[in-house]
Amino acid sequence: MLRRLAVVGLGLLGGSAAKAARTRGLVREIVAVGRRAERLAPALDDGVVDRATADLVEGVREADFVLLATPVATLEALLSEVWQVAEADAILSDVGSTKSAIVNVAERLTCSRALAFVGGHPMAGSEQGGYAGARPDLFDGATVILTPTERTDPHAVKRVSEFWEALGGRVVTLDPEVHDRVVAAVSHLPHLVAFALVDAAARVDPAAFGFSGRGFADTTRIAASDPQVWRDIFLSNREALSESVAAFRSALEDLERLIAVRDATGLEATLARIRRIRCAL
Amino acid sequence: MLRRLAVVGLGLLGGSAAKAARTRGLVREIVAVGRRAERLAPALDDGVVDRATADLVEGVREADFVLLATPVATLEALLSEVWQVAEADAILSDVGSTKSAIVNVAERLTCSRALAFVGGHPMAGSEQGGYAGARPDLFDGATVILTPTERTDPHAVKRVSEFWEALGGRVVTLDPEVHDRVVAAVSHLPHLVAFALVDAAARVDPAAFGFSGRGFADTTRIAASDPQVWRDIFLSNREALSESVAAFRSALEDLERLIAVRDATGLEATLARIRRIRCAL
Repeated sequence: MLRRLAVVGLGLLGGSAAKAARTRGLVREIVAVGRRAERLAPALDDGVVDRATADLVEGVREADFVLLATPVATLEALLSEVWQVAEADAILSDVGSTKSAIVNVAERLTCSRALAFVGGHPMAGSEQGGYAGARPDLFDGATVILTPTERTDPHAVKRVSEFWEALGGRVVTLDPEVHDRVVAAVSHLPHLVAFALVDAAARVDPAAFGFSGRGFADTTRIAASDPQVWRDIFLSNREALSESVAAFRSALEDLERLIAVRDATGLEATLARIRRIRCAL
Repeated sequence: MLRRLAVVGLGLLGGSAAKAARTRGLVREIVAVGRRAERLAPALDDGVVDRATADLVEGVREADFVLLATPVATLEALLSEVWQVAEADAILSDVGSTKSAIVNVAERLTCSRALAFVGGHPMAGSEQGGYAGARPDLFDGATVILTPTERTDPHAVKRVSEFWEALGGRVVTLDPEVHDRVVAAVSHLPHLVAFALVDAAARVDPAAFGFSGRGFADTTRIAASDPQVWRDIFLSNREALSESVAAFRSALEDLERLIAVRDATGLEATLARIRRIRCAL
């Protein structure tokens, strides 16, 4: 059981972590830190957090577990601030969807002060963002990727793993760069492509949307995602994303070429090969 | 009420049309035409069709409505054959998902024999193909696009419209080339892209699939579609598809450029613009 959990950023993920920790009785005290106190009021009202503050120092003080859950673009600066004020034996983790950058920052900070940080990425989401969308069961069965390096304290990895497992997650560990490549391929690239698909249809003929069916609805559902969140993710993971876009472009070109030369046999074989991969998921 | 409906190709669409016509009592007699008699046996057994034959001449004779529902790659040759043997006052239509090619064939055939053909495309589908997936309610509320030209007999358009409306569809008409551009943008391009997304993830890291979530599942669901069906559609609509792919590539490049130059403001504005289009669907 944790003595005090500080959640910095009480949005969908931070709010859900607080709710899950409270519901499951994992923590004696939960402190929410947010820039705007009025945004934290609902969590105080419903008893999910015990204290709420806009003061980072006050919020993080005496916490034995600090979870950084602000937008990914703000995490690097936030981690530097938290690093100065956290207790010497505190465990720090985050929920950002890209990991190389934040892990690099943590390793640089370790040179000046030895603190335990473990990068984390709970793969859970919802169309409804913010604390209003937070649910105590958000992590039930969700994959939570931790990205320790050879320099990460194994004890801290164990503590963070136990935290997410207690919240219902299935914890796996990945190298931070492998993490970024993998999520670029199965999450960031599909989001970018979904946005481009909607834009392409609008460019071909705005009337086309009147004839769209379930296939279009499914492939472009995630183009309704939050523009600010995805701006940050695309920018934060731009290198790995660029590699995925290159792989995608090359896959698309292979299909186009088979169509252009009317290679029916080759086209069917390629579609069948890809279909087998998709069906095996 | 139709005297005799001949359905050539008793798969998902032809089978569903036969089931809907039977269930709704629209037709006195339904004849199924298929290359393999044993494939037609289930429809005879369950009373959906009254006769089944592998002989096109026998099947089409005395029919006042002939619905061509074979794979799109076979439609042009089939239409030429049917054209020779159909009754002089028969109405011919099809369910192919590309329309310019078949409509051109029909207009050429009209020079040698005046017959009424109206291109059709019921926008309904199912993961389960074939007669086994056929359902009498498949067209309930489905958009059915008809593609008459200025040379098409308005009476025939009226008859075909009434047929699909009686089966539950909402009929709209489009120029054949506009149809092909529109379905390329909202159906064929998304399918091609879904196949390329799966292939791209496999190229980046086959282990990536282990970390895929609902976003990847949704965007790539249609990559599990039938390779033979999509081979034919991609080849049959390759010109319009090529235009859509070009629009898509250009949309994707715009996003990539904003990411590469780290234009956070421009990127967010573009994502927000696209999101508004998607949310308006």
